[in-house]
Amino acid sequence: MRLHVPIRLRWSDLDAYAHVNNAEMLRLLEEARIQAFWVNDEADGTDAGAPGAHPVGASTAVLDGRPGAATLTLIARLEIEYLAPIPYLRAPIDIQLWIGKLGGASLDVCYEVYGPTENGSATLYARATTTIVLVDAATERPRKINELERAAWTPYLEPTIAFTRK
Amino acid sequence: MRLHVPIRLRWSDLDAYAHVNNAEMLRLLEEARIQAFWVNDEADGTDAGAPGAHPVGASTAVLDGRPGAATLTLIARLEIEYLAPIPYLRAPIDIQLWIGKLGGASLDVCYEVYGPTENGSATLYARATTTIVLVDAATERPRKINELERAAWTPYLEPTIAFTRK
Amino acid sequence: MRLHVPIRLRWSDLDAYAHVNNAEMLRLLEEARIQAFWVNDEADGTDAGAPGAHPVGASTAVLDGRPGAATLTLIARLEIEYLAPIPYLRAPIDIQLWIGKLGGASLDVCYEVYGPTENGSATLYARATTTIVLVDAATERPRKINELERAAWTPYLEPTIAFTRK
Amino acid sequence: MRLHVPIRLRWSDLDAYAHVNNAEMLRLLEEARIQAFWVNDEADGTDAGAPGAHPVGASTAVLDGRPGAATLTLIARLEIEYLAPIPYLRAPIDIQLWIGKLGGASLDVCYEVYGPTENGSATLYARATTTIVLVDAATERPRKINELERAAWTPYLEPTIAFTRK
Repeated sequence: MRLHVPIRLRWSDLDAYAHVNNAEMLRLLEEARIQAFWVNDEADGTDAGAPGAHPVGASTAVLDGRPGAATLTLIARLEIEYLAPIPYLRAPIDIQLWIGKLGGASLDVCYEVYGPTENGSATLYARATTTIVLVDAATERPRKINELERAAWTPYLEPTIAFTRK
Repeated sequence: MRLHVPIRLRWSDLDAYAHVNNAEMLRLLEEARIQAFWVNDEADGTDAGAPGAHPVGASTAVLDGRPGAATLTLIARLEIEYLAPIPYLRAPIDIQLWIGKLGGASLDVCYEVYGPTENGSATLYARATTTIVLVDAATERPRKINELERAAWTPYLEPTIAFTRK
Repeated sequence: MRLHVPIRLRWSDLDAYAHVNNAEMLRLLEEARIQAFWVNDEADGTDAGAPGAHPVGASTAVLDGRPGAATLTLIARLEIEYLAPIPYLRAPIDIQLWIGKLGGASLDVCYEVYGPTENGSATLYARATTTIVLVDAATERPRKINELERAAWTPYLEPTIAFTRK
Repeated sequence: MRLHVPIRLRWSDLDAYAHVNNAEMLRLLEEARIQAFWVNDEADGTDAGAPGAHPVGASTAVLDGRPGAATLTLIARLEIEYLAPIPYLRAPIDIQLWIGKLGGASLDVCYEVYGPTENGSATLYARATTTIVLVDAATERPRKINELERAAWTPYLEPTIAFTRK
């Protein structure tokens, strides 16, 4: 089972080669990850019931990512393969996410970045894995994944990505 | 008559104060302007018929903004008032655009940036005007607004913004 | 009297037209402003005595801009004229700053953005003014410019910019 | 032998956690790579003799990276370990680069990102490897590393990074 997060490119994601910049790609993954995993709390001024407030499976959105929250989510490691440059696209790209590994205090989130579907097929632009560590904001030390989180994420466990270049 | 362009914030639009950065706000205006005015050409790999490919009034979308196009659109001037800091919002903000002035080779695009509507009202975060000059890409000199463009844009002529701080 | 802040472009400042993006230009102004006005405090992990830690006139650097500081500096208004597109340049650009107006709780910072000097002359790329309001972080209300700040900034008072397009 | 590229942070590199954003870190690596490997051509408007135009070993700077050049340099793969969050620092960080592998049409560039040296030591914030493919811009196919490039880069061959997390 995968999450599908539609992300709209911005023209400013392009660099001077008129392709989505390599670093900017990480921002797209970040945005997909936040929409998939962060709880959508009305306390930050967002109407959780507003249209579009929860574009993806809310069942996985159990982390409070706001500055000041009790848990920080730190990226410890990232691996990405860029398979084809992404041109400017008006229709949203489709970022698919799943969990490649659920550890004690960390998880591996896997991503495949597809273009919009045309004539039944879509281009695979990139594949990536990020290792995320849950950190207690007060002690600044890793903290265990709790039962609520484990239950929310376990359905999205799938084999991790086998990268072709090494 | 105004165009309404829904723009979804990204978490990376925030700066270290946890508000949308002042410079990033210009990217949001840029994105709204592109969605409102740039023609959505299949030649750039976008399926113009794809869902979401034309979120706003396609009637104003008559400019070809791609690198290599015959016309460049340059920003000559920008004025913006920041009325309130924008926090992280999950629901799209509502950027309203209209044309404050249609000159010979330039136009003033006006913007009001609203938060998502809650309980019938929405916060006005910023007001801005940009002067855009149409430039012939070959000669690099301003070129006249043509009849097609003038016809497409005239319905959106409204009084320009009277900024309060000067 | 003006402050001169050398700012090195990054390749990622360019957009798909291979020029410095309009929004990115504000980040360059922001960076120049921070180097000119923010105090350089060792408490944030920076060695104030390190080479390059204080590239510009430290006498104006009396504001504590860190998140959590007692004063917030908010941009209330920005006006900018883009006179020529900036290509990728390896040598630093020269952002000149001065103060166009010292009010009770706000100041206007003026900028001229020059390219590197070649053969004795430099291209003027942009001119801008930002109105900055000092806000008490606790009450979230404007607070008066104090005597220390006024003394530090008064030597840099110069006539404000008369923009040509209006 | 390593290249040392001093890179000055910008305040806008920080995200809402007040640390350098993970994606932004790739821009810092990109900037270091460009300064290390791209030829500094006066034809792009840069005065190659200007102070600061060549901050690092010009001997490795043999690639023409400008849009329109005969060779494109594409990132095919990236791996990065974030060892500690980077706070806002005024003094430049020290990005060290070397070549972990010189293939036929591709090379692995390795990076270690250090903070400014204080009291004789510096914090290691991140380690990364990027696989770069040289692509013929006309045919869009990989092209061989030529003798000039191989001679320029061979002195900087060092063992590649052994990442600790896998």
